Amino acid sequence: MSRVKQLTVATRGQGLVEFTPDVMRCVAEAGVEEGLCTLFICHTSASLCIQENADPTAREDLERWLCRLVPEQDRLYTHTLEGADDMPAHIKAALTATSLSIPISNGRMVLGTWQGIYCWEHRHGSHRRRVAVHIG
Amino acid sequence: MSRVKQLTVATRGQGLVEFTPDVMRCVAEAGVEEGLCTLFICHTSASLCIQENADPTAREDLERWLCRLVPEQDRLYTHTLEGADDMPAHIKAALTATSLSIPISNGRMVLGTWQGIYCWEHRHGSHRRRVAVHIG
Amino acid sequence: MSRVKQLTVATRGQGLVEFTPDVMRCVAEAGVEEGLCTLFICHTSASLCIQENADPTAREDLERWLCRLVPEQDRLYTHTLEGADDMPAHIKAALTATSLSIPISNGRMVLGTWQGIYCWEHRHGSHRRRVAVHIG
Repeated sequence: MSRVKQLTVATRGQGLVEFTPDVMRCVAEAGVEEGLCTLFICHTSASLCIQENADPTAREDLERWLCRLVPEQDRLYTHTLEGADDMPAHIKAALTATSLSIPISNGRMVLGTWQGIYCWEHRHGSHRRRVAVHIG
Repeated sequence: MSRVKQLTVATRGQGLVEFTPDVMRCVAEAGVEEGLCTLFICHTSASLCIQENADPTAREDLERWLCRLVPEQDRLYTHTLEGADDMPAHIKAALTATSLSIPISNGRMVLGTWQGIYCWEHRHGSHRRRVAVHIG
Repeated sequence: MSRVKQLTVATRGQGLVEFTPDVMRCVAEAGVEEGLCTLFICHTSASLCIQENADPTAREDLERWLCRLVPEQDRLYTHTLEGADDMPAHIKAALTATSLSIPISNGRMVLGTWQGIYCWEHRHGSHRRRVAVHIG
């Protein structure tokens, strides 16, 4: 048996938003002892990331590093109609994860001690990002 | 029940080649109402990408941005026997996706409105890229 | 039926460590004819990679290229308490793969001729990296 649910993650501008508890709830509700939890983000200007959930400075550095690698002001861009943050957002999404799969064992995801699941917003505005969750 | 099929994507030099309809056909043929579609590219100099399928300039900028990040002329490379585009292709493949998983709900992949599935060719020549499709 | 196993990959400083044979053994033991093998690394300073397993210079160039893109000496970092190699390791992990899924056909993973499965160590020390393997 497999099931697909949809989560919504509210973001407020660029950065990583943790939603590990929401995914944990999906896994608990599915009642699967051994299986696989797969996340898929239904957008091309936001992505998924598993990162350290202990020290927030790690995520801040990660965000600033990626913004420096993919700056908004770049004469290379021709796709500029949707705003200065749109093309960098697509590039950042291509460099990071659109889908992630996490095995489930003993009814729980096998996340490492410091691993959190994040929605990575690459645009400036606030968005409601849809993440499909498949548990099989 | 699960099944594995193989798709072939014909590429013509560097860039993104959409093959969403081919994957949709696999999903339709499998007749799965709720499940997971996983793609895996059997190469190390091409990769997979989910990107905006509306404005082609977004893909062109993406391609040119990645080529600038990973140029062919680079004194760092020692692996040069297979051509000037080979080592950059391996690096680009490592930075992007080798596998992608997309949940299936109501018999269809839960792709966002503007999401297309692409084979990303990183070499100059024309290639026939094999992509394995698992539907479970 | 699905099953989850745990592999341990011993690393010795930065670089790619192949563990394809270990994954093959898991697949063989599972006795699945058609299915999906999913790998998940339980760390945020190491990652997974499918790369060419023929010429070792390709992996060496890959490693050196990534170290140049994400150097240790960078005034941007504020997360420095865990060592100079820690923040670069998190960034490298975010740019590469935390999970990978490989279809199984005729009892074997559909890896291309030159594809190997690697654990990518991003820290200087020796580590025992845990990789969860789900076969479904």
